[in-house]
Amino acid sequence: MSTAVNRQIMLVEKPAGKLIPQNFRMAEAAIPEPKVGEVLVRVLYISLDAANRAWMQGVTYRGAVEANAVMAGGAIAEVVESKVPGFFAGDLVLGDAGWQDYAVLSADDLIKVPRAEPITHSLSVYGIAGLTAYFGLLYVGKPKPGDTVVVSAAAGSVGAFAGQIAKLKGCRVIGIAGGKEKCDWLLSELGFDVAINYKAESVLKALKAAAPNGINVYFDNVGGDIFEACLPQMGKYGRIVCCGAVSAYDGAAPATGPRGVPGLIVIKRLTVQGFIFTDFSAERETALAELRSWVNAGKLQVREEIIDGLENTPDGLIGLLAGENRGKRLIRVSAPKL
Amino acid sequence: MSTAVNRQIMLVEKPAGKLIPQNFRMAEAAIPEPKVGEVLVRVLYISLDAANRAWMQGVTYRGAVEANAVMAGGAIAEVVESKVPGFFAGDLVLGDAGWQDYAVLSADDLIKVPRAEPITHSLSVYGIAGLTAYFGLLYVGKPKPGDTVVVSAAAGSVGAFAGQIAKLKGCRVIGIAGGKEKCDWLLSELGFDVAINYKAESVLKALKAAAPNGINVYFDNVGGDIFEACLPQMGKYGRIVCCGAVSAYDGAAPATGPRGVPGLIVIKRLTVQGFIFTDFSAERETALAELRSWVNAGKLQVREEIIDGLENTPDGLIGLLAGENRGKRLIRVSAPKL
Repeated sequence: MSTAVNRQIMLVEKPAGKLIPQNFRMAEAAIPEPKVGEVLVRVLYISLDAANRAWMQGVTYRGAVEANAVMAGGAIAEVVESKVPGFFAGDLVLGDAGWQDYAVLSADDLIKVPRAEPITHSLSVYGIAGLTAYFGLLYVGKPKPGDTVVVSAAAGSVGAFAGQIAKLKGCRVIGIAGGKEKCDWLLSELGFDVAINYKAESVLKALKAAAPNGINVYFDNVGGDIFEACLPQMGKYGRIVCCGAVSAYDGAAPATGPRGVPGLIVIKRLTVQGFIFTDFSAERETALAELRSWVNAGKLQVREEIIDGLENTPDGLIGLLAGENRGKRLIRVSAPKL
Repeated sequence: MSTAVNRQIMLVEKPAGKLIPQNFRMAEAAIPEPKVGEVLVRVLYISLDAANRAWMQGVTYRGAVEANAVMAGGAIAEVVESKVPGFFAGDLVLGDAGWQDYAVLSADDLIKVPRAEPITHSLSVYGIAGLTAYFGLLYVGKPKPGDTVVVSAAAGSVGAFAGQIAKLKGCRVIGIAGGKEKCDWLLSELGFDVAINYKAESVLKALKAAAPNGINVYFDNVGGDIFEACLPQMGKYGRIVCCGAVSAYDGAAPATGPRGVPGLIVIKRLTVQGFIFTDFSAERETALAELRSWVNAGKLQVREEIIDGLENTPDGLIGLLAGENRGKRLIRVSAPKL
């Protein structure tokens, strides 16, 4: 789709409760001009992530997304005009281009990616989702072969990779997901050993049955009730990988939860550790090489859900927060032109 | 005091609320006979620890203390009769002898200690308190010189050592304690940089003022409200050392606390890790050597509160749980005789 103007999706106001379409509006602006040290890019695909919603709540590991500004978001984009040495028109780059057709990005915010593979893989298995799963599981969770690994939001983009990587490393993997269809997918396609449908059964009871000797690594994408159900089932010296807390992102979380957490952490000598994937930037190439080897050997399934049209980005995120997606959800904004 | 019988303090029932004297009763039994692989010991000093109360709640890192049994407790004792190779009458040993005059201990539960120093030091700075402070701070908290370290129950046996060790390692140390007298002691005698009296001021506000750039290491002895006040003040990549949760030991803890903990752990990439000192047994001699060098050089203050008489053990523990003590509280049961 050709656009003479730059369509932009603005965040109208910080949502007080659940995210709704009215929190966004479409605007139009001139295509911006890059200054020295910047490139102009055309956005090809936008990555939808649960974290997008957390950014609206305030400062996280990045600045808060402000009202009346273009909504932030990771994207794969094509360089249209470059004033950065080493970047050329037609290069594919990753960066926080936001929810718009065109963006100006500074050199610091650019990672060049290859055109060879399905380019969407740079936003899924070779992007935040894949690297987050890889570093979180292997560098924070440190599972050993034979360990019991539990993954929440297991059918989501990060969870599906984390569980598969745990299987590749010889672990027994229990996935927690919402709905029978997702659970079936975890078992039949992704090779999980057990799938718990938190909408249909008690997670606590199901974990007791599925992990009678305790959980060695819990890869937590959700926080809240499911975190609290896993905590007492952790085994001695267990590790909880705090990757995200999506249960608290969309709308006001319950003000209180159980106490006694520090006591349990002592008794079981748990390690509860937070991270984001950029903490391990030095290991990026190592991770990508291993991920690529698994994908090329057909050992790591990459499921991408691609929705067409920039105008569908808000609904795409709202649906993701409601748990609609399996695997990585992307918005296709434009085809490469150069 | 000479006893022809073995006086024993029994736990009458598991306390439902705050520990009270009526939860215990004094009994008398015959002095037991050691079998092969066991020694008979005479108890000299009993160690009082907040953890004693946690043992009454159920299984922790050790089995639960049962009703109608001798109350468990670490002690320094003198071997009276030995059927264990390498142990001889007159040897001083550490072990879980319980609250009684005499005990039979198996070879696995014995550590020989020197007679040379004040022998009580084997229950304080060279015992659980000192080793817990040392390993927790240095091996779990991993402070760097210049780091801001916060210690709760800072005037308690573990806290007083942890804070002093942090100072010896070049950190800025903030202690949290209950009462002006304790706070004055932390500042004037132990060299803490800041002392917060949680009974007189808001811990959250005081921490904001005292650690405006965030806490690097929080050594948590208490859990509950103070844990929750420290959490939002943690700096990026901060470490929370979960050593104990005394706020939850004595009586029913409030059922709920704040949620949102996993989210904060992610954003700040915190590590929250539980431990007990025996996790680091392989490093025991290293730790003791460094502790000894500090004590001998007058750099590490060892405060011991010694209460006379086995019959005073219950009141001694009840008072400790109420925060009466400064430093390490011990019960003197008997003088060495051999």
